[in-house]
Amino acid sequence: MNGAGETFDLTRAGAVALDGADELAPFRGRFVIAEPELLYLDGNSLGRLPGATVPRLRDVVEREWGERLIRTWNEGWYTLSRRLGEKLASLIGAGADEVIVADSTTVNLHKLTLAALAAQPGRSQIITDDLNFPSDMYVFQGTGAELTVVPSPDGVSGPEDGILEAIDEETALVSLSHVTYKSGYLYDLGPITRRAHEAGALVLWDLSHSVGAVPIDLGGHAVDLAVGCTYKYLNGGPGAPAFLYVRRDWQERLRNPIPGWFSQRRQFELGMDYDPSSGIGRFLTGTPPVLSLAAIEPGLDLMREAGLERLRAKSVRQTEYLIALWEAWLAPLGFRLNTPRQPDRRGSHVALGHPEAGRIDQALIEEMGVLPDFRRPDNLRLGVAPLYTRYVDLFEAMARLRRVMVEGVYARYPGELPAVT
Amino acid sequence: MNGAGETFDLTRAGAVALDGADELAPFRGRFVIAEPELLYLDGNSLGRLPGATVPRLRDVVEREWGERLIRTWNEGWYTLSRRLGEKLASLIGAGADEVIVADSTTVNLHKLTLAALAAQPGRSQIITDDLNFPSDMYVFQGTGAELTVVPSPDGVSGPEDGILEAIDEETALVSLSHVTYKSGYLYDLGPITRRAHEAGALVLWDLSHSVGAVPIDLGGHAVDLAVGCTYKYLNGGPGAPAFLYVRRDWQERLRNPIPGWFSQRRQFELGMDYDPSSGIGRFLTGTPPVLSLAAIEPGLDLMREAGLERLRAKSVRQTEYLIALWEAWLAPLGFRLNTPRQPDRRGSHVALGHPEAGRIDQALIEEMGVLPDFRRPDNLRLGVAPLYTRYVDLFEAMARLRRVMVEGVYARYPGELPAVT
Repeated sequence: MNGAGETFDLTRAGAVALDGADELAPFRGRFVIAEPELLYLDGNSLGRLPGATVPRLRDVVEREWGERLIRTWNEGWYTLSRRLGEKLASLIGAGADEVIVADSTTVNLHKLTLAALAAQPGRSQIITDDLNFPSDMYVFQGTGAELTVVPSPDGVSGPEDGILEAIDEETALVSLSHVTYKSGYLYDLGPITRRAHEAGALVLWDLSHSVGAVPIDLGGHAVDLAVGCTYKYLNGGPGAPAFLYVRRDWQERLRNPIPGWFSQRRQFELGMDYDPSSGIGRFLTGTPPVLSLAAIEPGLDLMREAGLERLRAKSVRQTEYLIALWEAWLAPLGFRLNTPRQPDRRGSHVALGHPEAGRIDQALIEEMGVLPDFRRPDNLRLGVAPLYTRYVDLFEAMARLRRVMVEGVYARYPGELPAVT
Repeated sequence: MNGAGETFDLTRAGAVALDGADELAPFRGRFVIAEPELLYLDGNSLGRLPGATVPRLRDVVEREWGERLIRTWNEGWYTLSRRLGEKLASLIGAGADEVIVADSTTVNLHKLTLAALAAQPGRSQIITDDLNFPSDMYVFQGTGAELTVVPSPDGVSGPEDGILEAIDEETALVSLSHVTYKSGYLYDLGPITRRAHEAGALVLWDLSHSVGAVPIDLGGHAVDLAVGCTYKYLNGGPGAPAFLYVRRDWQERLRNPIPGWFSQRRQFELGMDYDPSSGIGRFLTGTPPVLSLAAIEPGLDLMREAGLERLRAKSVRQTEYLIALWEAWLAPLGFRLNTPRQPDRRGSHVALGHPEAGRIDQALIEEMGVLPDFRRPDNLRLGVAPLYTRYVDLFEAMARLRRVMVEGVYARYPGELPAVT
């Protein structure tokens, strides 16, 4: 099922056959594909626009705002952060009352990191790895806690053993990206969460690069805290508000360090003394950006309809396929595989290392109709979004990448373009 | 010019004549008026939908996201928080490099309050008043600073003298709502800002209820810090991201307490150590909600086109007109005026106090085609948005309010509906 070790037919006909056998293929039709020739391999950065989002946004703007005006707060906007949280919860093995959608990933990470530290008096250490996303590092650095950054052994794999060893009675919090943003390494939630709990520490997983691509069972692992992004595999739109998860039995014991009226018990009594809500609502802060928030729902619905087990199976097979193409075509041209080979240690993107990756990225974008992304200093990331990525897209993109190298196209370009993770 | 003491013709024909003479009247046509019979007096809570926002949002969704995908980050999204900040700056007397639009008002207030406290070692006091918006109070309470809440003498007027007296060498920060959310009291920025500076304290004005309704000169008063909302008089859409202002010479001296990759110098080098940007950009945090952010721009453009002096003149005249109607029709029915009578001490809404205000509000909404809002325990707020509010709207709304009382309509309703400030 997971495609490991599968031998692929690496012809175009082989790719077409894989698409023909793909039971998720019809989901591509549920997205706006404005430029059918474009090979979009950046769904791990910004997911595509679901077709249903277009009328939904039009309705939010023209009817809910334009016509109903302030009344829509009572008719749905107030509960939107929680309602989306309920839907999202089912994708991450959380209870419906354990997730809300609001604020940015970084703001949410800041809230939960400070809350975790405050709940662990006498413990001052945060443990992470050097594969974590920079914004997460900045948040940890901003707390003033003692930060232990366990180095990856090879720049690709998460230092699981090193982390397990580092956790001790000084540890307040272990926080990692479930899938690392550059190499796509997929942590096993179990061992680290268990070890942290044995040592009396909390865990906070950043699910930005795994949610919607990998089945996640926060409840099964009794994960304490999590945050994540909705604009990648969840297709929620550019900069869409992020989510946060707090395990039920932590909710009453943690304090939201950014209090605000959306987390106030009986918000509309407008009391002058802060009295935090019970439950997950206490981690809200201010008024949420409704248009961006509402745009998240159609993507969540698609995800739930497709089912994460099927999505994961396709994602694994597609990344295996990419790796097979790399091995046949690109390894001989000097590309390194900067993503784990073992499928169960891999998220939904493949990173290829090359000293000229910046210029190669630019050549692909400017001349080849391929949109991958580039991560300094030398990583080309190819994202697989199983809801809409086809095998022929992967075949074509890799064929064009090979052409860029064989014909020296990249040499005409000066450097990289920035892009969002 | 400011309408103070004007004698109005309180007939419907008088209202029509006032509209006929209103040079801003054509701006109403620039908004979507989906329900022409609806008397919308809640623009101080959620501004109407500008007509230009409809195609703008469609373009952001369908072309920028749907078609250009990740490329739009480089084609405009990255600079959106700053570009909107530049436009907004001109409405508040700030420099183009002193304002950004991002996060919620509460998150921004939290950032700047903590930054101000950290910059004032040895000073631990925040001074505010008891008319301030609850979410602001919660933020101050959350800092752990010593909070001095100067009481209003009458629940309507800001306690200017009390605040001036309270400021001393213990004061780290004076923070007030420029226009108070309930009574609509308008502070004079000058004396309090000057006194705070004499005492070595900083000031942070919350402009949520004044921006777009009152000309503001932050630069002229050398105001240190400000935050504000874009979804009220600026017509930016439900929950639209808020703005923050930091005076140029403070920018390098203040630390953003919620660091994130959008405030990192050379963001796309993705360095692992936080190195904050120079300038106003250091007060950004995470990825902004682009759809909600982009929706702000058409409203800002309308504001700039109409000009704040003209808007303020109309707003003053319209609130004077409301007060004249109150005096003639409603004072005899037991309504109190809970807004200052002096036009230069008043923002752009009028609060009427009545013990049954909650039920009256409900009757107006359910049966009378009037949308005001209600603020506990006994305030009915009538907001004037001079870009689209007509004198006939005010005439009709007040006539219906009188009817609700005279015919006892309100007695059929159980209580209030919640609503957003």
